[in-house]
Parts: sequence; structure tokens; C-alpha cells
Amino acid sequence: MQTTTYTVTGMTCDHCVGAVSGELRRLDGVRDVRVDLATSAVTVTSEGPLDDRAVRAAVDEAGYAVAG
Amino acid sequence: MQTTTYTVTGMTCDHCVGAVSGELRRLDGVRDVRVDLATSAVTVTSEGPLDDRAVRAAVDEAGYAVAG
Repeated sequence: MQTTTYTVTGMTCDHCVGAVSGELRRLDGVRDVRVDLATSAVTVTSEGPLDDRAVRAAVDEAGYAVAG
Repeated sequence: MQTTTYTVTGMTCDHCVGAVSGELRRLDGVRDVRVDLATSAVTVTSEGPLDDRAVRAAVDEAGYAVAG
């Protein structure tokens, strides 16, 4: 297991948190997603290394963006 | 037909708009709901006079509040 933390911009409310979490949970190997709305931090727990492009695509699909 | 405009606090994004609109559209006699997120104005078009308590309850159900 490993955890990776991303900064996701544009999230303003719990619906946004749900949308981002929902898309990320669908990725292969993802076991848990935690979002701190106050800091825009999204922490993903996965079985192995995450495909950065897949993470960015999932966040984009939800309507948000990974910073950096 | 008549239109009534409410100020709804707490809406921050399109998901919030959708949640409030969805609940209000379920009310008897409601034909249309328009939300201006920038001004927090929610304009409801209805067949007749709206039950103010029902409107407030619907907004509350969505997780927001009618101001005033």
C-alpha cells in the first residue's frame, strides 16, 4: 500500500469532494481517497504506484484539476 | 404563472445549484427554477402561489438555507 497526495483546485463543497473521490475510486488499485477541502489536499491510498496521467484524467473527468 | 425570487445561502458551485434546483422542482406547481450563483438568487416559476414553508423545507433538504 502507498499513499500519494495531490492538490486539486476548484473544489468548493462536499459535492465537489464527492465528485473527485468518486472518479478516483474507480481507478485500478485505488483503495481509499481522502479529501481535505480546506487545503485542497486529496490523498489517495493505492495498492501500488499510481499512473499520474490516469489520476489527472480522473480529476479532470470530475471537472477539476490537479495543480502542478 | 408567477415567479418568486429567494436568496439561498451556501451555494458555491454547479453541484449546489443542481441540488437546490432538483429539490425545488419536486414541489407541487413548480414549473421552472433558475439559479444565479453569483448573486445567490433562486427564481422559481410556479402555476400559483408557493407555500413558503415548503420552499424553505426543500432548500433545507438540499443542504442550504433561504435567507431572511
